[in-house]
Amino acid sequence: MLTAHKIKILQSLDKKKFRQKYNLFLVEGNKTIKEIPTSKYKINEIFSVNPAELSIGNLTATEISPAELKKISFLQHPKDSVAVCELKEELLKEETGVQLILDGIQDPGNLGTIIRLADWFGISQIICSEDTADFYNPKVIQASMGSFLRVNIVYQDLENYISENNQPIIGTDMDGTDFYDYQFPSQFNLVLGNEGNGIRPEIENLLTDKITIPRFGKSKATESLNVAMSAGIILGQIFGKRD
Amino acid sequence: MLTAHKIKILQSLDKKKFRQKYNLFLVEGNKTIKEIPTSKYKINEIFSVNPAELSIGNLTATEISPAELKKISFLQHPKDSVAVCELKEELLKEETGVQLILDGIQDPGNLGTIIRLADWFGISQIICSEDTADFYNPKVIQASMGSFLRVNIVYQDLENYISENNQPIIGTDMDGTDFYDYQFPSQFNLVLGNEGNGIRPEIENLLTDKITIPRFGKSKATESLNVAMSAGIILGQIFGKRD
Repeated sequence: MLTAHKIKILQSLDKKKFRQKYNLFLVEGNKTIKEIPTSKYKINEIFSVNPAELSIGNLTATEISPAELKKISFLQHPKDSVAVCELKEELLKEETGVQLILDGIQDPGNLGTIIRLADWFGISQIICSEDTADFYNPKVIQASMGSFLRVNIVYQDLENYISENNQPIIGTDMDGTDFYDYQFPSQFNLVLGNEGNGIRPEIENLLTDKITIPRFGKSKATESLNVAMSAGIILGQIFGKRD
Repeated sequence: MLTAHKIKILQSLDKKKFRQKYNLFLVEGNKTIKEIPTSKYKINEIFSVNPAELSIGNLTATEISPAELKKISFLQHPKDSVAVCELKEELLKEETGVQLILDGIQDPGNLGTIIRLADWFGISQIICSEDTADFYNPKVIQASMGSFLRVNIVYQDLENYISENNQPIIGTDMDGTDFYDYQFPSQFNLVLGNEGNGIRPEIENLLTDKITIPRFGKSKATESLNVAMSAGIILGQIFGKRD
């Protein structure tokens, strides 16, 4: 049952502090919820305006009204259902192929988009600095479109992690090698920096190479590309060269 | 002066109907406002919390309080200044190189991101179907980061426009040629379809070729890429091949 107390708990889950306190996060929308059982995540409870449409093993969704859904959803336009899931500490996996390293990505939409990109390109692990946005944030989960279920996302002390990593560490920067001319190795880490400040100096010092996406437009007033878009363009090029 | 009447007018400019009625739209933030005088747009009036920082020819900004700025800004976190500019009907320019054609893009953020991408890659014109989002929408202007000043954006009856166009019309689709293998001609139109429904059948019939970005991740549950991200990855590849 959706008691007033439960509503209060669920509404608090947009804050990391409360996600950790209750060990819970929310996943919204039948499409993504149906994919959870084949992932490493465990669903505790499901609330749905239409439970008949959602059959997941022996888990029965609790029927709620659209007004109740509106109360517990973090979406501007709530979908059909909300699943309450347990947080799971992600363990560092052995590195294979291309890995992403995020140095202080702050915007939940950018983080979600990068997770979705990683999934598209078959990248299985993303290493985040400890000050990168929390991927259990409802906005990240939403923007990742279910891709958080398939990509291992681990928070690490980046300086330590990179210092102990034996693969090339390639960073995106304004004054690096034109990435079209760069010969990407078969296994490496691609570092993406904070939206406003880029990669922090301590991490920049540890890069083995820097690459840049050249601007073809002539105006110097043109803003640099958004970090998620840059990642997409670079990954598109790397994977194209591989085939 | 920022009268109650003026505030009411400015607040109405998030609606196309009122932008057209008053022939006005808003540009926010000193950085972009400073670029307007070298564009084809005319500023009518500027309101700023710090007019001293904004000197544009003989235009003097009217000082307003942060509380007033909050009233007229469409941003969640208002910047320093708001410029009230006159709408300008964009005229169809002769086609050169690569052009984008948007078939029913609805999300203002996507449209703004696509305009920013076009500017980055030096694409000078975007042709929009009449039901594509209005680029004078404050969210589009914001997401374009000033790039709307440098890209010609024209609304056309797409069926007519494409029928009379002599260049290749290449559409993005789920079942087209792998774009890594596709030989892009030197001059062409790239058609991007609606977020939910893709390119509409009447336009699809007029395509000379269809291309697809292959998914490298193995899960079939992975959502297709967002339309702006797809555009970025395709343009990144095209411009890389050109150099």
